[in-house]
Amino acid sequence: MAHNNARLLRVLRGEPVDRTPIWIMRQAGRYLPEYRATRERAGDFLTLCKTPELACEVTLQPLRRYALDAAIVFSDILTIPDAMGLGLTLEEGVGPRFARTVRSSADVDRLPVPDPSRELAYVTDAIALIKDELADRVPLIGFAGSPWTLATYMVEGGASREFAKARGLAYGAPGTAHRLLDKLARATTDYLSAQIAAGADVVMLFDTWGGILTTRGYREFSLRYMAQIIAGLPAATPVIVFTKGGGLWLEDIAATGCAGLGIDWTVDLAAARRRLGDRVVLQGNLDPAVMATDPATIASAARAVLDDAGVDARHIFNLGHGITPDIDPEAVALLVETVVDYSPRYHGLAANPTGPATRA
Amino acid sequence: MAHNNARLLRVLRGEPVDRTPIWIMRQAGRYLPEYRATRERAGDFLTLCKTPELACEVTLQPLRRYALDAAIVFSDILTIPDAMGLGLTLEEGVGPRFARTVRSSADVDRLPVPDPSRELAYVTDAIALIKDELADRVPLIGFAGSPWTLATYMVEGGASREFAKARGLAYGAPGTAHRLLDKLARATTDYLSAQIAAGADVVMLFDTWGGILTTRGYREFSLRYMAQIIAGLPAATPVIVFTKGGGLWLEDIAATGCAGLGIDWTVDLAAARRRLGDRVVLQGNLDPAVMATDPATIASAARAVLDDAGVDARHIFNLGHGITPDIDPEAVALLVETVVDYSPRYHGLAANPTGPATRA
Repeated sequence: MAHNNARLLRVLRGEPVDRTPIWIMRQAGRYLPEYRATRERAGDFLTLCKTPELACEVTLQPLRRYALDAAIVFSDILTIPDAMGLGLTLEEGVGPRFARTVRSSADVDRLPVPDPSRELAYVTDAIALIKDELADRVPLIGFAGSPWTLATYMVEGGASREFAKARGLAYGAPGTAHRLLDKLARATTDYLSAQIAAGADVVMLFDTWGGILTTRGYREFSLRYMAQIIAGLPAATPVIVFTKGGGLWLEDIAATGCAGLGIDWTVDLAAARRRLGDRVVLQGNLDPAVMATDPATIASAARAVLDDAGVDARHIFNLGHGITPDIDPEAVALLVETVVDYSPRYHGLAANPTGPATRA
Repeated sequence: MAHNNARLLRVLRGEPVDRTPIWIMRQAGRYLPEYRATRERAGDFLTLCKTPELACEVTLQPLRRYALDAAIVFSDILTIPDAMGLGLTLEEGVGPRFARTVRSSADVDRLPVPDPSRELAYVTDAIALIKDELADRVPLIGFAGSPWTLATYMVEGGASREFAKARGLAYGAPGTAHRLLDKLARATTDYLSAQIAAGADVVMLFDTWGGILTTRGYREFSLRYMAQIIAGLPAATPVIVFTKGGGLWLEDIAATGCAGLGIDWTVDLAAARRRLGDRVVLQGNLDPAVMATDPATIASAARAVLDDAGVDARHIFNLGHGITPDIDPEAVALLVETVVDYSPRYHGLAANPTGPATRA
C-alpha cells in the first residue's frame, strides 16, 4: 500500500525522508475536548474501545487537528486479559481492575487463548473502519501490551506502583509465570496478526512494566516473549518495542528483531544511538512533563530532542510516554509545528536523493 | 572510633573483610512486630521520629534479631521540609502530605534554612542515644533525602507516581528550581554535618526520585546538588548515594566523591562493576519482591547477588530498595544467614591478610 504520507514507514525501512515523522503516544486521549465528548457519549472507556465506530472516531480526531505522521488504533493494552474473561473494569482515577486474578498454575490453565476474530473482533473491525477513513493518508499503528505487562496486571488484579506480587510470582514460581507468559505471547501473536491482516501497517508492543524487573528477570520474563511474538509476525510489518524504564537494556531490545525501539525520557537519545550503532530506529523521547510548561520551553525541548537524534537520524519523534489529560491542545500544535519546521535540517533528502541512511 | 564490628567501614575504606557486610533499607520497620508495638505506643509515625527514646528503640530492634553490620537512625527523608514549616503529615496508605506546596520564587524565598541544633535536634538527640546504646558494636548510618527528592514532594504537595509538576517546574522555571535545590542542599549539608557531629559514622543520601528525570535533568537538578553536599561534609565520613532508577548514570554518580553507590535491583551488579572499574563500593541489590517468596528462592537469589558482586568485592549487601511491611521476619533471618555463610568465599582476608582490594 502506498501512503500519501509514508514518512513513518520509510524511516522504519531505513529510507530517506524530508523531515522526522511524529506521532504521540495517547494522541487520541483526554487532553482533547472532542475525545471527552465522544467518551461521554460512549458512557465509559471500555464501551468506547469496544464500539468500532466510536473507536474509529477518536482515532481520527488528533489527525484532524495536527500534521501527525501516523494514526494509532484507539484501544487498551488490557483487551487480551479482558477477552480471557478476567472481568476488566476501567475506572477513571482508579485505573484498571480485574474481578479475578491469575496466581496459580490452575488459574493459568483455566485461561482460554482468545480467538481474535471473535472476542477481539471489535479491534479488527475498528482497524478496518479507520483504514477506510484514512484512505492511505497516513499509516495506521496497531498495538498490544507485552506479555509481562499484561501478566503484572493479571497477577496483581489491577494497577500497582511496582507490582511486587507479579515479580514475586516470577521469582518464586517461574514455571507458572512462564506458562502464563507463553499463553499471553501466543494470544498476542494471534491478536497482532489479526490487526495486521485487518490493515495495521506497523505494530507496537507496549512493555510498560518491563522496567521493574532485574536485568536477568527482564530478559527471561519480558524480552524473550516479545522476541517470540516478533518472530511469529509477518516479516514485512515493522514492529516497534517500547519498554518503559528499559534504558539499561537497549542492546538486548534491539536484538529482538524489532524495527523500532521506543525509549522513555530518562535515556539520552544521542547516547542511545552511540550504544546501538546503526541498528534500529529510535522512537521518542520528549519528557511528557515538558508539555505542561510554556511555549518557549516546549519548542526548545523539542529541538533538543531532534538535536540529540542528530543528522539523518533514523528517528521517530514522540513523547517518552503517553500525553497526560492536563495538556493544552495548543501545546501539541506547537510541538508538531516545531518538529515540522526544525527537523528537515537533519534529513539529507533534498541534497542527497539516494538517501543517507542505510540499513545495518 | 574502633567498632567491634567494623566491616561496613572497612569495606567503605577499601580494606579487606572476612565477609560481605549486610544491612537492610528500612530494617527498622513495619515488618517487625516489635516495631509495630512501639509505633502503636507513639501514636503516629512523626511522633515516633520526633521522640528520641522511641526512635532509638526502633533503630535497635532489628539488631537484636539479626547479625546486621550497621544500624541506621530511624527517621524520615522529609524531616527537612517539615522543619521548613510546610506542615507535614504522614498517613499510612496515603503517604506524605504537605499543607503548603512550594512552586513560586516567593514560596522558595519564604522557606527558612532550618538550624539542625534547634528544629532537627530530635534527630541528633536520637543519634546520641543510639550511639550510647550501640557502644561501638556496629557503625551507625545517618541519612537525608536528596535535594531533588525533597523538592519533588514539596512541589507536588505529597507523593505522586511520577511527580510531573516537579519535573515541569525544573524544565519551565529552572531558576526557581535551582534556588529551591540550592537552599535544600545547604540545609542538608548542615543537617548531615550535625548528624556526623552527633556520632553518625556513615551518611547516605536517598535520591528516591532522581530516576524520573531526563539524563540532562538528572545531572543538573539532582546529581549536582548531591555533589555539593558531599563536598561540604567532613572528608573522613564515607557517603553513600542511592538514586533509585539511576542505573544509566552510575559513572556520573561515582564521580560525586561518594564512597558507596547504592543500586536498585534493575541493575546487574556484575555489569555495574564492569562499568565502574575499581571506583566506589557498590551497595545492593536484591529485589525486595524476592523477600515475599519461599526460603529456597530467597537463599538462591541472595547467593546470586553475591556471585554477581564477585571475588573480593567492594560490596555491601542490601536490598535494591526498602523492605516492605508484608515480609516475614524469618525471611530476613534467612537472608542474613545466607550472606554470613556464603559470602566469605568472596573475601581473601584469611588467605591474603594484606587485603586484596585497593582504592582507586
